[in-house]
Amino acid sequence: MIKVLFRSHDKEVYCNKGELLLDVARMADIFIDAPCNGNVSCGKCKVKLLNGKVDTEKTRHISDDEIKQGYVLACNSKVVSDIEVDVPSKLSSSMYGMKIEGGGKEKDEAIFNRAKKIAENHNLKFSTNIRKKYIELSEPTLDDNISDVDRIQRYVRHHLGYNEIDFRLDILRKIPILLRESNFKVTLTYVKKKNKLTIIDIEPGDTGESLYGIAIDIGTTSVVVCLVDLVEQVLIDKASSGNAQIKYGADVINRIVFATKKNGLDELHKAIIHDTINPLLHSIYEKNNINRDDVISVVASGNTTMASLFLGVYPDYLRREPYIPPFLKSPKIMGENVELDVNPSAYVYLAPNVASYVGGDITAGVLSAGIWASEENVLFIDLGTNGEIVFGNQDFMMSCACSAGPAFEGGGIRCGMRASCGAIENIKINPVTFEPKLGIIGECDPIGICGSGIIDLICQMILTGVIDRRGKIQKELNTPRIRFDEHGIGEYVLAFKDEYGLENDITVNEVDIDNFIRAKGAIYSGASVLLESLGMDFSVIDKVYIAGGIGNSLNIENAITIGLLPDVEREKFQYIGNSSLVGSYLALISRDAKNKLEEIASQMTYVELSVYPGYMDEFVSACFLPHTNIENFPTVKDLLNV
Amino acid sequence: MIKVLFRSHDKEVYCNKGELLLDVARMADIFIDAPCNGNVSCGKCKVKLLNGKVDTEKTRHISDDEIKQGYVLACNSKVVSDIEVDVPSKLSSSMYGMKIEGGGKEKDEAIFNRAKKIAENHNLKFSTNIRKKYIELSEPTLDDNISDVDRIQRYVRHHLGYNEIDFRLDILRKIPILLRESNFKVTLTYVKKKNKLTIIDIEPGDTGESLYGIAIDIGTTSVVVCLVDLVEQVLIDKASSGNAQIKYGADVINRIVFATKKNGLDELHKAIIHDTINPLLHSIYEKNNINRDDVISVVASGNTTMASLFLGVYPDYLRREPYIPPFLKSPKIMGENVELDVNPSAYVYLAPNVASYVGGDITAGVLSAGIWASEENVLFIDLGTNGEIVFGNQDFMMSCACSAGPAFEGGGIRCGMRASCGAIENIKINPVTFEPKLGIIGECDPIGICGSGIIDLICQMILTGVIDRRGKIQKELNTPRIRFDEHGIGEYVLAFKDEYGLENDITVNEVDIDNFIRAKGAIYSGASVLLESLGMDFSVIDKVYIAGGIGNSLNIENAITIGLLPDVEREKFQYIGNSSLVGSYLALISRDAKNKLEEIASQMTYVELSVYPGYMDEFVSACFLPHTNIENFPTVKDLLNV
Repeated sequence: MIKVLFRSHDKEVYCNKGELLLDVARMADIFIDAPCNGNVSCGKCKVKLLNGKVDTEKTRHISDDEIKQGYVLACNSKVVSDIEVDVPSKLSSSMYGMKIEGGGKEKDEAIFNRAKKIAENHNLKFSTNIRKKYIELSEPTLDDNISDVDRIQRYVRHHLGYNEIDFRLDILRKIPILLRESNFKVTLTYVKKKNKLTIIDIEPGDTGESLYGIAIDIGTTSVVVCLVDLVEQVLIDKASSGNAQIKYGADVINRIVFATKKNGLDELHKAIIHDTINPLLHSIYEKNNINRDDVISVVASGNTTMASLFLGVYPDYLRREPYIPPFLKSPKIMGENVELDVNPSAYVYLAPNVASYVGGDITAGVLSAGIWASEENVLFIDLGTNGEIVFGNQDFMMSCACSAGPAFEGGGIRCGMRASCGAIENIKINPVTFEPKLGIIGECDPIGICGSGIIDLICQMILTGVIDRRGKIQKELNTPRIRFDEHGIGEYVLAFKDEYGLENDITVNEVDIDNFIRAKGAIYSGASVLLESLGMDFSVIDKVYIAGGIGNSLNIENAITIGLLPDVEREKFQYIGNSSLVGSYLALISRDAKNKLEEIASQMTYVELSVYPGYMDEFVSACFLPHTNIENFPTVKDLLNV
Repeated sequence: MIKVLFRSHDKEVYCNKGELLLDVARMADIFIDAPCNGNVSCGKCKVKLLNGKVDTEKTRHISDDEIKQGYVLACNSKVVSDIEVDVPSKLSSSMYGMKIEGGGKEKDEAIFNRAKKIAENHNLKFSTNIRKKYIELSEPTLDDNISDVDRIQRYVRHHLGYNEIDFRLDILRKIPILLRESNFKVTLTYVKKKNKLTIIDIEPGDTGESLYGIAIDIGTTSVVVCLVDLVEQVLIDKASSGNAQIKYGADVINRIVFATKKNGLDELHKAIIHDTINPLLHSIYEKNNINRDDVISVVASGNTTMASLFLGVYPDYLRREPYIPPFLKSPKIMGENVELDVNPSAYVYLAPNVASYVGGDITAGVLSAGIWASEENVLFIDLGTNGEIVFGNQDFMMSCACSAGPAFEGGGIRCGMRASCGAIENIKINPVTFEPKLGIIGECDPIGICGSGIIDLICQMILTGVIDRRGKIQKELNTPRIRFDEHGIGEYVLAFKDEYGLENDITVNEVDIDNFIRAKGAIYSGASVLLESLGMDFSVIDKVYIAGGIGNSLNIENAITIGLLPDVEREKFQYIGNSSLVGSYLALISRDAKNKLEEIASQMTYVELSVYPGYMDEFVSACFLPHTNIENFPTVKDLLNV
């Protein structure tokens, strides 16, 4: 056995000779960001060897200078002797880490209320079929000696008017002692459905009428949880964090590959439930003083892969031709089935998927955006990990998925991060000095750059001539912000480490820019081809809804300038926030909305771009700033004077 | 810590000073028969101290001679030093032990067929709503890329005609890999209910159409399991053993008391499921080469306490005034909920209870006996542990429970045992020599005496003048078979140890006889009072059905002679076997029969004898051979010349 000491974490573990350092770190529960999941393609898992030797190979991700300092990639270094390793704190911190962030309720309320209004205007009623009721039973006597269960059923029959009453074995197991300890005064939680009443919980004494639900957006990169008061149908609180599955890969493909490994599916299931959602639930319960047994309904939405991993269902066949998802609509499940920390009998509903790459998050997004009720033509673009597009109105809906990767959530970029505290979210570059002016989320020093920041950066770079339309950094500019490594790859320094007392400079290089251009090209070409498949173009669009993890600081003008969004009238654009989450919230407070979700999923047509003729040509054309055909971007043409 | 070595079992355990030897043995998983569960009242838990000391008290159960040999009661001996103990093998063997016995199918077939005929004649249809079907799905292509679940659902919709299709998460988790491994050729097991089809299992390839069900009679003393072919609706095999809960007490009261102790309920649940029923299932699966996943339906019947312990529900309040059972009708449960070794999704149905002391075994018994369809007046007597009585016909049914204890199954008698191999089941006593002629079950030496044997014995003793009508052994008889201990308690030797090479003589003493007389008195007085409550007497009876663990070697004539059964025309009597088991079998193969069970349970009136005026007087009068009022037994009066 070989000893590996993670000096940064003061943690010592033993492994076999030849094991990958990345695997050893995972085994030791030390988080090393590795978006490409060990393919040596992203260069993110850089760690510093302090002592001992590893068997590694040279890659373009490690500079000569870094080699001298002892840096290696954890994913291509085999442990061959006892070693000591330092994991840079940014890799193990909140870049993609598990930091739970609450709040933002005020900002959200407008978005939630807008969606609620749309639903209400189109006859979706807000009510749930779950109730809580305090009841006082008569105590048994020799003359009234019916069974405990019959005593409860008799009350329900007489006072609530239900003849068919159902309950689970675990409820029965509670009843005898609980009735006596509470002097036959108990609170029932029950679900009404047609003529049947199902008791899902029984508690001693009067525990009030409060009932809560949880809406969850299971993003590939970020997970958001909302606590909802089901009686008042209002949002109480929100908490979010990174998806703990991120250590197994930044995008769905890498996660699916990991799921095929031994215990991989279990680990991914555990990561989303136990390491992501449950900690969020705990924090939100504690903050709001909520008893988890009062949480009796859950609606979750995520892409098809996230939905599969949430349920612990093997997802591998959806990434292999002919791209078959395991399910679209999930079976009926309860909290305990997936080990969620809610009432064990809580109903857990997953927004239905449309296809392998258009999941319940999009169905929920379409619900909350109100496309299903719109007379106008709506282009809906979800800028999360990957990127999905829906085009349609009240009469029809078409959807497609773009292989954009996690760029809009800061993935695939060396200094990228989620749009959370410390993220550079907007940038101005002085056209003379090339010095940047940074807008940072929260009151803190910059840690990295998020999706909207990268859009701004690339836009500013092209406008100031730092890069050309292929995204290459210009060599002749006289500024310390621009530099080139020994391979000739240029980078722009957003923040020198000395400016803020950081461990490293925050930079964006040509590889990052190239990754981002491919991502934005995938979105633009996807939207373009989706319309083309209908014999239409962007001129038919009345509204463009932007949703997803990109965040509301997205600058539409800049996004058009770089060719991510089509060059249509600016007033047509609207940022509608985390529409997947809002859709889950609607389904949580309204059975009608849930039915509408099912309807949306079954009616939406899916276009498989990868087999669509001409898509690749369109994609290649879109991998340019803003596009090889500048005529598609008349306002940008003027701006750039080309 | 103190060391206890069970020399007989070659097992060494450690315990705290002062712990009861009985508890130490249970902890060590060494079975010591203790029917009274440590109340120092039955004297059965006699063990031999080989070395060391215990803190014990003198009791009438240990003779002076036995004290000298080192015998103590495990239930009143506290361990105070390291000891070595010998547990007599009969205490730990098949007297009440876990020996699994199969077979007996031929004998049963007549009984099962009789019940089936009754049901059939009264329009109960024999069919289940569970099916198994091999299907070949089309393989997915780019043009036919619906989800795996939708592919199955499409098939079901087109070929089986069901629109609403349901399945559980564990089925979904199996689907993706299973479909590919089987080339999309699978066997579905499903339940049809109204318009809905629920898939409860999916297996690769064609696994045939065989489906099995299990009928279980959960007796307090014995448990019987039947394997039933659900397609052909026939009994395949049967296996039985003692109820492993017996180490926690012989009757329901002692079990309930144990359930109130720390972990007691869990241990009792474990004892019936893991130590009794599951081993029976394994043996029957192995013998018949059955895959447990093909067992998709279970019907069990037992008294109200057994039903509670089977489900793991706290039963204590049913033994305390006002005698409230936790439930009458069980909630819907599946195999996995109670950890039964059947298909995890198998439906488990418990025959509904009537009251705290009239349980599902009686409901099932009444179903199979056909009282609900009878034009004649039927008296139904279940001679199992305790003893329940039903009187009625197609228009009404009354029931009561008698505190008879386990005597009819050989309990409460020092050398008593279940009616299994080695049990003395009938006896003749020579009126001159007082030598017995024994009928023994199976081809083996006698081990003990079962219920029907005790009835014969007491009958023969009174007819030959060995005992008087109070059950006292006559002193003046000149035979080595009769002897008295130092307390003056007489006993009759059924088998000298030297006759058969036994460890001890097989004897029945006055305490045993007294216990049995109280048991038979409870039954007779119960029946008598039940009729009296209707203003009737035994003359109105057209049929007397005897059911239960007493076994079919019960001699009706002898049972009347001792005053257990009423002195009515002999041709009215019929032994109908384990009617609880037969009722479970009917409910297993017929939904109509299941509905009938529910009807029987809700229509049967329960008479609480303990609060019935005059019951105690009647009971005391019946604790005599045959009765203080000999006029009730005209034929016995002639026989005894009194």
